[in-house]
Amino acid sequence: MASAVTPREEDYSQWYLDIVKNANLASNSAVRGCMVIKPYGFGIWERMQRQLDDMFKETGHQNAYFPLFIPKSFLSKEAEHVEGFAKECAVVTHHRLMNDPNGGGVVVDPSAKLEEELIVRPTSETIIWNTYRDWITSYRDLPLLVNQWANVVRWEMRTRLFLRTAEFLWQEGHTAHATAEEAQEETLQMQEVYATFAEQYMAMPVIRGVKTANERFAGAVNTYTIEALMQDGKALQAGTSHNLGQNFAKAFDVKFQNENNKEEYVWATSWGVSTRLIGGLIMTHSDDEGLVLPPKLAPIQVIIVPIPKPNEALNAKAEELMAELKARGIRVQYDNDKKKRPGFKFAESELKGIPVRLGLGKRDLENGTIEVARRDTKEKSSQSLDGIIDHVEQLLEDIQNNLLQRAIDFREEHSHIVDTMEEFQAILERDIPGFIYAHWDGTTETELKIKEMTKATIRCIPNDAKEEDGKCILTGKPSKQRVIFAKAY
Amino acid sequence: MASAVTPREEDYSQWYLDIVKNANLASNSAVRGCMVIKPYGFGIWERMQRQLDDMFKETGHQNAYFPLFIPKSFLSKEAEHVEGFAKECAVVTHHRLMNDPNGGGVVVDPSAKLEEELIVRPTSETIIWNTYRDWITSYRDLPLLVNQWANVVRWEMRTRLFLRTAEFLWQEGHTAHATAEEAQEETLQMQEVYATFAEQYMAMPVIRGVKTANERFAGAVNTYTIEALMQDGKALQAGTSHNLGQNFAKAFDVKFQNENNKEEYVWATSWGVSTRLIGGLIMTHSDDEGLVLPPKLAPIQVIIVPIPKPNEALNAKAEELMAELKARGIRVQYDNDKKKRPGFKFAESELKGIPVRLGLGKRDLENGTIEVARRDTKEKSSQSLDGIIDHVEQLLEDIQNNLLQRAIDFREEHSHIVDTMEEFQAILERDIPGFIYAHWDGTTETELKIKEMTKATIRCIPNDAKEEDGKCILTGKPSKQRVIFAKAY
Ligand SMILES: [Zn+2]
Ligand SMILES: [Zn+2]
Repeated sequence: MASAVTPREEDYSQWYLDIVKNANLASNSAVRGCMVIKPYGFGIWERMQRQLDDMFKETGHQNAYFPLFIPKSFLSKEAEHVEGFAKECAVVTHHRLMNDPNGGGVVVDPSAKLEEELIVRPTSETIIWNTYRDWITSYRDLPLLVNQWANVVRWEMRTRLFLRTAEFLWQEGHTAHATAEEAQEETLQMQEVYATFAEQYMAMPVIRGVKTANERFAGAVNTYTIEALMQDGKALQAGTSHNLGQNFAKAFDVKFQNENNKEEYVWATSWGVSTRLIGGLIMTHSDDEGLVLPPKLAPIQVIIVPIPKPNEALNAKAEELMAELKARGIRVQYDNDKKKRPGFKFAESELKGIPVRLGLGKRDLENGTIEVARRDTKEKSSQSLDGIIDHVEQLLEDIQNNLLQRAIDFREEHSHIVDTMEEFQAILERDIPGFIYAHWDGTTETELKIKEMTKATIRCIPNDAKEEDGKCILTGKPSKQRVIFAKAY
Repeated sequence: MASAVTPREEDYSQWYLDIVKNANLASNSAVRGCMVIKPYGFGIWERMQRQLDDMFKETGHQNAYFPLFIPKSFLSKEAEHVEGFAKECAVVTHHRLMNDPNGGGVVVDPSAKLEEELIVRPTSETIIWNTYRDWITSYRDLPLLVNQWANVVRWEMRTRLFLRTAEFLWQEGHTAHATAEEAQEETLQMQEVYATFAEQYMAMPVIRGVKTANERFAGAVNTYTIEALMQDGKALQAGTSHNLGQNFAKAFDVKFQNENNKEEYVWATSWGVSTRLIGGLIMTHSDDEGLVLPPKLAPIQVIIVPIPKPNEALNAKAEELMAELKARGIRVQYDNDKKKRPGFKFAESELKGIPVRLGLGKRDLENGTIEVARRDTKEKSSQSLDGIIDHVEQLLEDIQNNLLQRAIDFREEHSHIVDTMEEFQAILERDIPGFIYAHWDGTTETELKIKEMTKATIRCIPNDAKEEDGKCILTGKPSKQRVIFAKAY
């Protein structure tokens, strides 16, 4: 603990890893690309899960669980899906180990080869739509609104804790509908649920938009996204919601009898967010002193530090404060370690991103005061112990709001409207490039050429894009609206 | 829905599968041995998870997440563990698929063979203790109290929904301690948590005991178990808590500096329960009409059925009742389907095991009454609408208690104390054999011989076994206490 964090200016990537390490969020494991999520990091994920799960249930969804493994042949059933997902994945080929006849531990039993290989799910559309065929026969079975919390595996070559790992945790919603309109409404509803969660809980502002054909989910008719801007001016795709049309219903032959007794293919959506959100959370708020967490997701919201060390009077007062804070539903801890100095404890609470720190000393008790430090702005003030519970409760709300506003301001500062390729490139060469609103001629060819030239990709066409006549920054061809370009994670 | 359930007397195995199918709990999937847990079944699991998770946290544990994959060599590091788990398992040998050059979909890319095969975790002791080496250096890092909710895979050849599946969901606690005593206390504490959960929430009475050497977890010094008796007189091992001694610490070289600055190996425990509990829940309470659920775990506790069908007045009254029941935290639904008859709805609610059914008709509204049916005893009565909310709340509690008492009575009826091999065999030949308390000479040899002769195994040596002089039923050798034999799942 309390080892230094590399400043962002010096090395942003190292800063990120230092935050993850020093706040005890996660670590690499013995398995290439797979992470261990440590208790403090998992505590953040649990709060995210709980809140999202509530929001999914409020919108009528139920949880279920589908197999980890997907028969290899299933991946080939949807023509585009196979191109997207049948690449880097974990392939199970055998189902038994045996003692090495040469005495070298255990080896794969060659006689236990599977007839058909199994793929560890990179996403579950295929196995789920194969199941839905048995669940859906009539319009009365629709809509089918199901979500799954699960682990998935994509064999990424370059991994980074939370942001891109071979195994990650996520939720994947898979819904079935009687009409194209309903499926589209569901797709947009879940994009909005994600956006609300990102903004109201993570304090991370996002742009709601739709992906270009080139960036679409493999097998989708349309992919909606929420895009956030990180402190290094790169975009993070934080969640996606796909309108799958009838593609998977056709691939897995899922039909229903409609109200007029006619058979139709079912309409589908899928949508997901993952432990990647924790990476986004870190890169939206944290600073050179360590992690910064929005109070709504912080495992510990308030820490009380006795100054200079615990004694009976301080312990008694701390217990009293903790009981009162807990009664308000506030998550509070008392750092009663006798061996560590207050300065060390302060640094530790900053590394961990605890939103509010209360310093309680002997003099405070005499004066009826307490020192209140907020993590987001580092402001400290002496407050009266009278009314301190109200003060802390209000402060947590202020911090939550301040973090969101600060992130909105940052994004505004780093959003640029450009009309020429020269401006475009100049902005991308800045230290913190940000979002670039520019005209594009609508072709994948141009999109790929710009990516090749600049490494910037089209993050999305914003849902609220205004119609506006313009010319593509690369080809000069006519365009009707600006899209958002950025370098991205 | 509403298809018939095979009576238990006729075919117990088919009865079980009929319950699972008709209550929409789970189904087989396209992947051999892997199940799909359907929303209603998953709703039960979610309630189990939530309650257990609360109990784990109350006893000081935190959640974390470790990789799905285990390097093959890790399994060989603990000598007994490898014998137990390096057998039927899912082996990942490749990390890429490619298009079949002959046009036959996708095939495994032979160039993407892993240097070391990865095993899909059958349990996580090895990967976790390999991680704990980095987390533990001093006594100040102890105790380390961690739990993980995860999926695991054991390649079972004969599978049965919930009871034995290739993939299942579970939690696995993995704790590290400074002393043998603390590890033993933790082991017993978690056995007691499981027993409390089984009895107070599942209404499933259990025997707390310790396994014989032969039935121990591979790598454990001692395995504690909770054993329940199913309605067919077979035992179900419902949860286990293992004292691992220093076995895994030694295998993975996990040492700590004790308070006297001396290096010692860490002491360990692990403990788990799984979706198998749902199988136990079904087989403890259900009857020939369908599922029976204890109110504390029922996704729907009360269903209101309009008689003969919904109309404005009935809907209004139902809405009012629902609001009042929900205000008490009771999970209630209104079956306002216009096309199904009440009789069909009654049968459906019985198949789903909804504890309380309220039938509300026009005449009831006039008389200020309502028909109350309880699922456990099938008793019906007409109750005044005045005070109905209190009545229902009390009834749910009564049902919870009645289910537990009924299961205790069943177990008592089917617990037998025997002193000879003849009696022993006679009881095992009954339709519902049950638990047999008998003397055993303490050797694995005798245990295995009895198993071979009768298929009965020693379920456990009860924690509260009285010291009692006796003779082994097989060998006549002296014995100091009775152990429990049974046929088992
Ligand atoms: Zn900028
Ligand atoms: Zn009996």
